[in-house]
Amino acid sequence: MSELRKDPIVSRWVIISKERGKRPSDYPPDEVPHRGSYCPFCEGNEKSTPPELLAFGRPEPAVPNGPGWKLRVVSNKYPALQIEGQLNPRGEGLFDIMDGIGAHEVIIETPAHHKDLTDLNTDEFRLMLEAYRLRLLDLRNDKRFRYILIFKNQGFAAGATVAHTHSQLIATPVVPRLVTEELEGTEHHFQFKERCVYCDIIRQEINDRKRVVAENEHFIAFEPFAARVPFETWIMPKYHRSHYEDEDTEHFRLLADLFRETLLRLKLALDNPPYNYMLHTAPVNLSKDWSIYHWHFEIVPKLTKVAGFEWGSGFYINPTPPEEAAAYLREVKIKGA
Amino acid sequence: MSELRKDPIVSRWVIISKERGKRPSDYPPDEVPHRGSYCPFCEGNEKSTPPELLAFGRPEPAVPNGPGWKLRVVSNKYPALQIEGQLNPRGEGLFDIMDGIGAHEVIIETPAHHKDLTDLNTDEFRLMLEAYRLRLLDLRNDKRFRYILIFKNQGFAAGATVAHTHSQLIATPVVPRLVTEELEGTEHHFQFKERCVYCDIIRQEINDRKRVVAENEHFIAFEPFAARVPFETWIMPKYHRSHYEDEDTEHFRLLADLFRETLLRLKLALDNPPYNYMLHTAPVNLSKDWSIYHWHFEIVPKLTKVAGFEWGSGFYINPTPPEEAAAYLREVKIKGA
Repeated sequence: MSELRKDPIVSRWVIISKERGKRPSDYPPDEVPHRGSYCPFCEGNEKSTPPELLAFGRPEPAVPNGPGWKLRVVSNKYPALQIEGQLNPRGEGLFDIMDGIGAHEVIIETPAHHKDLTDLNTDEFRLMLEAYRLRLLDLRNDKRFRYILIFKNQGFAAGATVAHTHSQLIATPVVPRLVTEELEGTEHHFQFKERCVYCDIIRQEINDRKRVVAENEHFIAFEPFAARVPFETWIMPKYHRSHYEDEDTEHFRLLADLFRETLLRLKLALDNPPYNYMLHTAPVNLSKDWSIYHWHFEIVPKLTKVAGFEWGSGFYINPTPPEEAAAYLREVKIKGA
Repeated sequence: MSELRKDPIVSRWVIISKERGKRPSDYPPDEVPHRGSYCPFCEGNEKSTPPELLAFGRPEPAVPNGPGWKLRVVSNKYPALQIEGQLNPRGEGLFDIMDGIGAHEVIIETPAHHKDLTDLNTDEFRLMLEAYRLRLLDLRNDKRFRYILIFKNQGFAAGATVAHTHSQLIATPVVPRLVTEELEGTEHHFQFKERCVYCDIIRQEINDRKRVVAENEHFIAFEPFAARVPFETWIMPKYHRSHYEDEDTEHFRLLADLFRETLLRLKLALDNPPYNYMLHTAPVNLSKDWSIYHWHFEIVPKLTKVAGFEWGSGFYINPTPPEEAAAYLREVKIKGA
């Protein structure tokens, strides 16, 4: 079992994988993921993954763990955290440890090996958004969990190790510190203004227009004012909502349209860049409901290296001003937009 | 001039380079730094850099900006922040901006193009440590600065863009948030215990021994309990001292020995890995003197990719427990150790 360990100075939690215990020789200098002909995420290879937790698209009567699906969610075969057991929190002198309890799932968004998210149509993209919602709803029933993080690593440089497109979900028994910082910032603004800081940002961005990439009736894509990296892009509902899983499903068509269009603009402007995106949503199972938070996606293209200055300071150097990045992305010619 | 911008939610500062304004085509997918035959950091090419701020090793009478040096410090030719001007802090609606005032310097540790830090002898390594000290002492006289970060990017994957070994220094007019978090953590521990948290950690590590890599009379190298990445290694004085620049220079020989040995152990165990290291020292020119802080170096080998989970959470997954990493590093056979 892995361990959750807390840094005694800055209270940062880290997952230490004890079984996987990688040796020095397991870190070859130019590690490239194995790209054999066999793919565990392809249709027909369903037995290569743990049993599925959710699937869409099979004709009725649907038989789980066979072909015919449009989207599958499975447990990660090599989970960072495991679902069985108790947290067993304990000390070791100065240090705090818990057993590595959590959930680690994989969302396989399409059976087609060579598609990326921009190759999906709106309906297929919407299934992914709906799968995120259903997994969040299910996992928040587990009272051991405090946060459920959904993210995507696209491309080797962004940390993907399987070429077939997929998202991941990790549920943790503690609130991660970047989330805590956002919650505290949201709270701080609310105490001063009695308003949501994200709602205020959206209003200013719509007014300024210079950092807006695209928008529709309910959603907006824009470059944040203090973007950490070139072409960092956020997608948000224009109305206030704290928990993604409480979203109106009838809005997912508009969200799918805007999200797909944004990824397509990034792909065309930057020649298919590696990227990560993360769903930022409110925590679960806390005494405070955090309804003042505002869910959103953050897309982070991997164009520059995180170097010593960033590691040592948490400061970032961004060589493309977000206003210029937004202009480049708006100028991209795409069909139907 | 670049801009310092503050994220309105988490108060993270970002440097936005306005002139350098990189276009999408400036981010080729497999960017490798240019490795022409001409190196601006080599002996004989001193005119390729801005005038030197400090140099060691030239025979008297020393002529600046010519050959014969053992170590040179120069301003960065393409600085992220510039030294001339005023901060001019201002708002833009919700957002906070300052002009990009600061210092950005390069420490060229050796005239030899093909050496890395482990190829230096103790005396040469000591010169680097002394150069760090002198630059910190000089720059803290500039009352505009709050923090002076010294760091090294070794290898392309760790963000180096010039092959010739060098460290960098960036002085900022605000305290970076990772530093603030460490200061707050140090303060929090002190309020409870009236002791330095780093001193407490050192005592426990010396007692446990399982995470210690190497030590001598005054310094210790160990794997931190909640290491973010495989083979993360910290080097610290065993006695309490907050500001690196107030260090006793007679201790630099022992520090050079241990630092060089640690880098050599990492190099041999991990087959010359890319890495970053950062000097963590107390801030300057604040009303509080932060004498409760404890300076140290953090070495972070670049063996894994920072992916969506880390970006979205500030949580890290480390597949090599620090106890195992320490054992591997101790087992490395090196001459004279």
